[in-house]
Amino acid sequence: MRFGTDILRQADILAAFTEDPPGVTRSYLTPQHRRAGDCIAALMREAGMDASYDALGNVVGRYAADRSGAPVVMTGSHMDSVRNAGRYDGVFGILTAIACVRDLHRRGRRLPFDFEVVAFGDEEGVRFGVTLIGSKAMGGSFDPAWLDAKDAGGTTLREALIAFGGDPDGWRALDRRGKGVVAYVESHIEQGPVLLDEGLPVGVVTAIASGARMRVEVTGLAGHAGTVPMGARQDALAAAAEMVLAVERIASAPGAGGSALVGTVGTIEARPGAINVIPQDVSFTVDVRSGDDVARRRATAVMRDAFGAIAPRRGVKVASDVFYELPAAPCDASLQDALAASVARQGLPVRRLPSGAGHDAMVFPPVCPIAMLFVRCGAGGISHHPDETMTAADAEVATAVFLDFLETWTPPNADDA
Amino acid sequence: MRFGTDILRQADILAAFTEDPPGVTRSYLTPQHRRAGDCIAALMREAGMDASYDALGNVVGRYAADRSGAPVVMTGSHMDSVRNAGRYDGVFGILTAIACVRDLHRRGRRLPFDFEVVAFGDEEGVRFGVTLIGSKAMGGSFDPAWLDAKDAGGTTLREALIAFGGDPDGWRALDRRGKGVVAYVESHIEQGPVLLDEGLPVGVVTAIASGARMRVEVTGLAGHAGTVPMGARQDALAAAAEMVLAVERIASAPGAGGSALVGTVGTIEARPGAINVIPQDVSFTVDVRSGDDVARRRATAVMRDAFGAIAPRRGVKVASDVFYELPAAPCDASLQDALAASVARQGLPVRRLPSGAGHDAMVFPPVCPIAMLFVRCGAGGISHHPDETMTAADAEVATAVFLDFLETWTPPNADDA
Repeated sequence: MRFGTDILRQADILAAFTEDPPGVTRSYLTPQHRRAGDCIAALMREAGMDASYDALGNVVGRYAADRSGAPVVMTGSHMDSVRNAGRYDGVFGILTAIACVRDLHRRGRRLPFDFEVVAFGDEEGVRFGVTLIGSKAMGGSFDPAWLDAKDAGGTTLREALIAFGGDPDGWRALDRRGKGVVAYVESHIEQGPVLLDEGLPVGVVTAIASGARMRVEVTGLAGHAGTVPMGARQDALAAAAEMVLAVERIASAPGAGGSALVGTVGTIEARPGAINVIPQDVSFTVDVRSGDDVARRRATAVMRDAFGAIAPRRGVKVASDVFYELPAAPCDASLQDALAASVARQGLPVRRLPSGAGHDAMVFPPVCPIAMLFVRCGAGGISHHPDETMTAADAEVATAVFLDFLETWTPPNADDA
Repeated sequence: MRFGTDILRQADILAAFTEDPPGVTRSYLTPQHRRAGDCIAALMREAGMDASYDALGNVVGRYAADRSGAPVVMTGSHMDSVRNAGRYDGVFGILTAIACVRDLHRRGRRLPFDFEVVAFGDEEGVRFGVTLIGSKAMGGSFDPAWLDAKDAGGTTLREALIAFGGDPDGWRALDRRGKGVVAYVESHIEQGPVLLDEGLPVGVVTAIASGARMRVEVTGLAGHAGTVPMGARQDALAAAAEMVLAVERIASAPGAGGSALVGTVGTIEARPGAINVIPQDVSFTVDVRSGDDVARRRATAVMRDAFGAIAPRRGVKVASDVFYELPAAPCDASLQDALAASVARQGLPVRRLPSGAGHDAMVFPPVCPIAMLFVRCGAGGISHHPDETMTAADAEVATAVFLDFLETWTPPNADDA
């Protein structure tokens, strides 16, 4: 195998840089970030690239073009993780790109563009509650107010950057807009079951779903579980249970945006939370995603209407607040077609599918057209979980597709850039 | 007002003996228990009784009969509280009894029975996770294994009793079975809205509900909230939401035991508990009560069947465990009639109602017939909450009813006892 076995072995090595072994937890600007970044930079150099940390702790590798003044093609993914994560989320996209460069370099092959591989320091947002810090700086949407965001221990992003050896005020220079970048193409594990269920190793992403996150507060009336007759209750948890099922029903309705729409209640808390007390207050969150912003907004509105209809019938109050919204990022049609052609040249059927998860690629549209290649995961498509898995054979195919794309794709007006 | 104003003022004083002012939290064998017990003993003595702590920290007051060798009538309630409690739960039953004795004593009136008023040190079970410790010792169901139960700080009940000045091995002598006790009659706030809704100050309890507590574990499969299509999910929280509504529906069904049956899901926990992750595991508790053991057992079985039907349809697993069961304690018909006659002599309609909550009275059936007088609460009937309230006028009526009962009821075979 040319690539697959090595990539999985490298992912195993990176998985050892964790805050809580044997689980994988690697947060932004920690010693584990440093060790993983150093390892990735070493792999980049060994593959034939220049590599260094930028002001925000991203590791940037560069494989120079076959000519001077060439345009830039970017790829990359994140080296941070959620808590108790798998070992391929993010990391695979970095390692597959390095494997491509290693192969090109061995063959003495240069490309008609500078190829830049970025290992982003933060995408998951675990430490400071802000996601995609590294890629947003490059996409021109870094907000300097985040420098004052604190982690659980009270350390600000600014302080953590300084301690890491970064430069809190260096974010402006990272903005890639107007810097000759003509494409951002990211490989990533699918983190879902679609390719697995269809028996396909790779797929071409059509769009990265828009996301909305809502916090819902239901307020009823506490009471003794033994003394308040069923008909006299204002049970916040029974009301919330109806709302949870409404989210599921509305997200599942074909009219709400087709199969690409999903809605999830991931957290719930009932207070006071005693066995023998009727819940007075319940909070839960709703995560709604779709490749289609209009469908997502419509579904969110239908959910809020449903909450508003359930509450008065049960004598409870409900308040819902959309506290986070990120628009869908469509993938560029011509880049999709180029990736699809590379898939077809591997003798594989071309499956196009949306990405329900967010990715570093989604903040690059202000810089350049984007595209993504998805790779099958095993274990039911599970991710953000230690059971996350992929095969060396799939890593092999995905890397061959990406390499084919790099060797065949021609930047628009490459000679003018 | 003869009684009501004083009783509410005394309740205010006892409310100041709290572990977390301004809330009322008074746990077993704490300094707050000591101060409240000392205050109650002083009130008892001032009212004309002998009063002392027993081996388990209960305060026992005794108002001697008009003759020697007379039978014993007991009353009482608990001086401990839940966390952040109201000020009348338990305490009212102690203070109303003391008020009766004070009035009898002023008038030089003795009764044809020894009248014993007990302020139980533990009913709520907050500190050691065992409820009704004081009354169970008197009812003959104390389990010496409880002496090794530990509080959150690792102190055993045995150690706490010794530190309090009690006697861990003195519980055997507290057993009142075969000691000439002919009745246990307890006054208590209703802790529910029935009397409030019907505009009545007092009611006669027909039975103390049986209780069953169940722990339910739902196991699905975690997944990324953006990437797993709705139809491919094994969402433990959506399944649990259906189960919560099944508990409500089954407890509300008239066929399941009439209006006296109630079912409550008071706690719920979803794991991993992240906004963007489909819940893998959900735990919740079910509290089911009824004055009718058969109806309660039937409803619990129907709920478990419903869980078992919901789970496979959603590709999740469910396990439920009934970890606590206490049989219903019916109130004695002739004591009920005597209390009802006293209510009627106050010019009030007689409302009989079951008690959904457990009370010290419920463990006395092995000793003697039991009865209870319920008193209206305000604020929607809320209890176990700082908003718990009652009026001086209702305290007045309830005390007058109880005093009338004491002065008119004749112990069976009083002369033979």
